[in-house]
Amino acid sequence: MDIKGYIRTVPHWPVEGVMFRDITTLLLNPKAFQHVCNELYERYKTMDIDKIVGIDARGFIFGAVLAYRLSVGFVPVRKQGKLPPKTVSAEYSLEYGSNVVEINEHAITKGEKVLIVDDLIATGGTVSAAAKLVETLGGEVVECAFLIELPELKGREKVKDYKIFTLMEFEGH
Amino acid sequence: MDIKGYIRTVPHWPVEGVMFRDITTLLLNPKAFQHVCNELYERYKTMDIDKIVGIDARGFIFGAVLAYRLSVGFVPVRKQGKLPPKTVSAEYSLEYGSNVVEINEHAITKGEKVLIVDDLIATGGTVSAAAKLVETLGGEVVECAFLIELPELKGREKVKDYKIFTLMEFEGH
Repeated sequence: MDIKGYIRTVPHWPVEGVMFRDITTLLLNPKAFQHVCNELYERYKTMDIDKIVGIDARGFIFGAVLAYRLSVGFVPVRKQGKLPPKTVSAEYSLEYGSNVVEINEHAITKGEKVLIVDDLIATGGTVSAAAKLVETLGGEVVECAFLIELPELKGREKVKDYKIFTLMEFEGH
Repeated sequence: MDIKGYIRTVPHWPVEGVMFRDITTLLLNPKAFQHVCNELYERYKTMDIDKIVGIDARGFIFGAVLAYRLSVGFVPVRKQGKLPPKTVSAEYSLEYGSNVVEINEHAITKGEKVLIVDDLIATGGTVSAAAKLVETLGGEVVECAFLIELPELKGREKVKDYKIFTLMEFEGH
């Protein structure tokens, strides 16, 4: 199935020069949505995974379906101030400024094997911070899974300590 | 299954006087998470539904699983500025000030039957705005489904033109 064909490219959004890869057009098509969820399920169904971490907010969509299919717990990593206390937080750099993500402190217990899920890996800043949160709680990051990779932004280099799995690549950024 | 027991109450969060009902503790437990998703699936599997609308961000978790199970398309309704163009938007009142939610203008086509999903109905402001967006695109709101209802906040009165389904109720707000 040509799942790349279901991703819409929006030029110059959210800022001039960026080619935004829009997954909402894939979500609209039940067959394409089923296909990507099933691809992830097939990859992870035999791996030893205790928890799925989904990154706010599009990572919730695919992460929740995968946690449901695998019968494991789901853990949201969210932007600062969105999760009730107590949380632990990690900061990461953006092109201009920085951002903070949080996780509930009891969401993962020591030794648990964790798969991190998001829709897209760009520079790798968010997933790198999410992995740090998992490890702060004593969890082990088994792999990080994404629908889309933008190889030109070299996200894999930023998270080279972790295994990365992606379903498709797009040139440009 | 006592699913209410999996919801954690956080007093005085995010502001003094509010009893926050935290679903992340339910998500951590695979059996409880499966249970609520399956309850929703059992209710809607025989209804005529073309699209699931999930409300940003916790509505994505349950809405995505339900769309996957029902093999229908999933549509995110998001806070202003999060969805790429072109969108339509609706404003709704908060206790102080107002908020804006958006939907992609091609997400729903005329005559489609839509189920709206979120984790919680409080005053009903958000779901009321989401329903307005669906109707602006020509869709028909079949029902609105929530895990949690806070009856004291009278959300059902605000959205009395729509059918509301909830899995559990909590006193207070």
